[in-house]
Amino acid sequence: MIAITMGDPYGIGPEIILKSLADDEIKKLAGFLVFGSRGAMEWSADRLGITWSVKVIKSAEDAPDGGIAILDDGRFRWERSSVGKVTPEGGEASARWITEAAKVCLSGKCDAMVTAPISKEALWTSGNQFAGHTELLAHLTRSSRAVMMLIGGGLRVALVTTHTSLKRVPALISKGSVLNALITVHAGLSGLMGIEHPKISVCALNPHAGEGGLFGDEETREIAPAIEEARKRGIDCLGPFPADTLFHAAWKGQFDVVVAMYHDQGLVPLKLLAFETGVNVTLGLPIIRTSPDHGTAYDIAGKGIADPRSMKEAIKLAANMASRKRRAC
Amino acid sequence: MIAITMGDPYGIGPEIILKSLADDEIKKLAGFLVFGSRGAMEWSADRLGITWSVKVIKSAEDAPDGGIAILDDGRFRWERSSVGKVTPEGGEASARWITEAAKVCLSGKCDAMVTAPISKEALWTSGNQFAGHTELLAHLTRSSRAVMMLIGGGLRVALVTTHTSLKRVPALISKGSVLNALITVHAGLSGLMGIEHPKISVCALNPHAGEGGLFGDEETREIAPAIEEARKRGIDCLGPFPADTLFHAAWKGQFDVVVAMYHDQGLVPLKLLAFETGVNVTLGLPIIRTSPDHGTAYDIAGKGIADPRSMKEAIKLAANMASRKRRAC
Repeated sequence: MIAITMGDPYGIGPEIILKSLADDEIKKLAGFLVFGSRGAMEWSADRLGITWSVKVIKSAEDAPDGGIAILDDGRFRWERSSVGKVTPEGGEASARWITEAAKVCLSGKCDAMVTAPISKEALWTSGNQFAGHTELLAHLTRSSRAVMMLIGGGLRVALVTTHTSLKRVPALISKGSVLNALITVHAGLSGLMGIEHPKISVCALNPHAGEGGLFGDEETREIAPAIEEARKRGIDCLGPFPADTLFHAAWKGQFDVVVAMYHDQGLVPLKLLAFETGVNVTLGLPIIRTSPDHGTAYDIAGKGIADPRSMKEAIKLAANMASRKRRAC
Repeated sequence: MIAITMGDPYGIGPEIILKSLADDEIKKLAGFLVFGSRGAMEWSADRLGITWSVKVIKSAEDAPDGGIAILDDGRFRWERSSVGKVTPEGGEASARWITEAAKVCLSGKCDAMVTAPISKEALWTSGNQFAGHTELLAHLTRSSRAVMMLIGGGLRVALVTTHTSLKRVPALISKGSVLNALITVHAGLSGLMGIEHPKISVCALNPHAGEGGLFGDEETREIAPAIEEARKRGIDCLGPFPADTLFHAAWKGQFDVVVAMYHDQGLVPLKLLAFETGVNVTLGLPIIRTSPDHGTAYDIAGKGIADPRSMKEAIKLAANMASRKRRAC
């Protein structure tokens, strides 16, 4: 059973979930339990002309063992007039659905969770202080090693820092934070992702890797010592390399993954190559979690034109990792 | 006549210049005056099996009006044992050749300059304080509006900040610096590059363009006001957009150029798409200047395997811009 969270109910979440679960190739992968709003799903199904006739349950206890079900406890009231808008209610509900799905995954009832996009602004408006899924799930599962990884277009990219202003990034790059990412990425790739001896490459923080210390020294002070320590622990990693040459090398197949220092450094090349099909996976959690690599797309919410490819890829990856986990147990 | 500077004489500069000037398609574009070391050229020509029999002059006064000549005043002594190494002598000479070529361009004797790669480390070791070509040429030509632009792989990317540590970037992003880049890019594209009404897009500094102020506020504080001011001046520019979605849109043809806030933000996507063929052009100078978009590549210097494609593209672009300038005069 795979848990799917609706994300922001006023974004494209309901639509991409519907389109994905209507796909025969997806349906045969697993049973699915959707955490979200029945109203949102029914309205979207109606607009899309998709038959959405599934078991509705009010508690995870009642979840079936297969097929498709939706868990809606009735606390969130979906309003048609809010479609495409940032609302505190949408933010609050999306955080709650994630929390419930994480619990169900931790209990073993579901094997993996796939999360549709949330709005960080809605999340914050609702009083929730987490910067995003990765940070919220790390908190819920008491994980200090969570690392965000994106896959698509022939690249795998993991991030040392994620949703933070560029100004704060340099202070967050330390031997410890880089080493944590290397350990987590190595464990994730060699474990549930099935890459026996992953070759890991590491970006520099500064242009030209600091050009011998002329444009910053985080490379020699923090990043290189982390790589050295990781190598001592048997992790096959190299760097720090200037980011503007490394991504091309990785894309040509020289490495299995690039560890980038900050959001745009990693996501600009990834989204350039995999704009509609990228998948996000959180490594270092006790549960399997993937998601599509795009946002709530409020501007096209409810219009029936959202592209479900990234969501489908996220479901496929989750199912794949879950089956590897079951075989390992 | 196009001036070509050798760049660091112990990098791949001599080799890519030789390979380019041996190409009949390049040769017919213009006459060429190389600023560099005769010894380096002769040794490289010998290793490459290329006939290098050109006029050697000691002063720019003696430059011919066509064909290929090399200006070597004898002040730099090339040493075979230094090939592939950072040296203060190489740094000093490469800065001097740029200075002399800029003078010759300012005088009108040459129409454009194409610069082979220098080593910023060698430059600094020699006591030179400039971060790179762009900064040195801005100083030499007393230009306060110089902007680095890269072209390749279907993208044009201009940078608001260039060779500086990531830590210093946020403080350098101001309404003034962004507006300067927009004005210079607009003038460059609509002028010597022949794009009648350039559509300019602007990156945010922070991930998700700051996500409504949650991850930084430079977007609303500095970048958006600069865009607004530029639009008042008749410049067709839009943004700030999250960088990880903008590059894909630009690559699909929605914009003629992306203005990026810092080095890796712009160069990671560009080099991913145009690893061997990117061209660098400095806009906002009183002279035309282009260069290949790669470094000295000390590791392969003298081995005969350097790829001259980027250098050839740089020469073609310089010749193209020079001919447009002549027609405009």
